[in-house]
Parts: sequence; C-alpha cells; structure tokens
Amino acid sequence: MVQYPQIDRTFAALADPTRRDVLERLGRGPATITELAEPYGISLTGMKKHVRVLEDAELVTTEKVGRARKCDLGPRGLEDIESWMTTYRRMLDGRLDRFGELLDRTKGTRDDK
Amino acid sequence: MVQYPQIDRTFAALADPTRRDVLERLGRGPATITELAEPYGISLTGMKKHVRVLEDAELVTTEKVGRARKCDLGPRGLEDIESWMTTYRRMLDGRLDRFGELLDRTKGTRDDK
Repeated sequence: MVQYPQIDRTFAALADPTRRDVLERLGRGPATITELAEPYGISLTGMKKHVRVLEDAELVTTEKVGRARKCDLGPRGLEDIESWMTTYRRMLDGRLDRFGELLDRTKGTRDDK
Repeated sequence: MVQYPQIDRTFAALADPTRRDVLERLGRGPATITELAEPYGISLTGMKKHVRVLEDAELVTTEKVGRARKCDLGPRGLEDIESWMTTYRRMLDGRLDRFGELLDRTKGTRDDK
C-alpha cells in the first residue's frame, strides 16, 4: 500500500467547515488570525489551531507582522486531491462502461434466441 | 457559519490511504470484509472500523450475507466535495483574473506616464 501523508493531511484539513471557510476567506486576500476569528466568535487560540492544521497541509502560509500573524493561501493547492478524484472517477466510469457492455451482450444473447 | 456534517464526513473518510484503496477496490466490484482486509495484513476488526467510517459517510453500503459482510459502493458519491472544490476553484480563478486586471491597469497607468 502506498502512503500519501500529504494528501491525507489535505483531506483532513478540508473535513471542517471553519477551515474550508478560512480558505475561501483567504482566497479573497490575506488576513490576520484576529480577522479570521472575528466572524465565528471563536477564540484566537481556536482559530490558531485551525490555521495550524491548514499550515501543516501547506494550504496556508503565515507570517509574523509586528504583533499580528498574517495568513495567506499557501503554495500547495488542491491538485493532489483533484488528481486522486479524477483517477477514481475515471475508474468508476470504466466500471459503468463495462456494465453497459455486459447489458448489451446479454441483450444480444437474448435477441439470438 | 453553515454546517456541512455530510461533506465533513466525506472529506474525513478520504483522509486515509486504506479507506481510499477500499473505495477503489469496491469500484471493481463488491467484496467481503475478509477480502478487503487480506491485501493489508490488518485485522478484520481494523478493516471493519475503516468500513464503518466509509459507511457513516454513505460512500459504502454493507449487507450481511450468511456469515460474511458484503461491502459495495454506496448511493452517495463524491459529488458534494467535487461541488465544493469547483466553487473554490472558480473563486480562486476569479481572484487571479482580478489580479491580472490590476496588473493591466497598473501597466496602463505606467504607459500613460
């Protein structure tokens, strides 16, 4: 079995609505931890934890600017999980195609009778 | 903040290489817990736990057949996370477009000088 620690971290980082919201927020431009926490009424510590998970997945970068910590989208995007999903989707489509061919062959056999 | 428990469960279910492998395996056809566990050399209990996570995410269904538990792909696919990712990607593309327009305008300003 091949291990994909990075893709695991990406999927896990996205498994939370606040973290997905943070990505969407940062998609509109950089923000500090305080600015990110504000709309949720959660503590700075709580938001820092979410940002740390996104940072570990390399989806977000942070930089200390004065007393604040500025967050921005990281260099790594969702390419790895998009790639896995494309492969999986293609495999399922292949399965449906084979099922269709089987139905056609069954129909052909019945028509021969 | 809108809560998406189902999409959270889908992302979390995919955050493990064994569970992604199980989905790919079931994409080729139904299998029992024993058949799923075999390639990994993990216990039946371990595989049951993975299958339960996939079942909670409605990605897999299971059915008791005699003494075995047969697993198959569930009714729910990856549509919810594909949909979220499309929206996110579109938002990022929009951001890049706006950045491009900004560069064009800056260039225009400089050209005017």
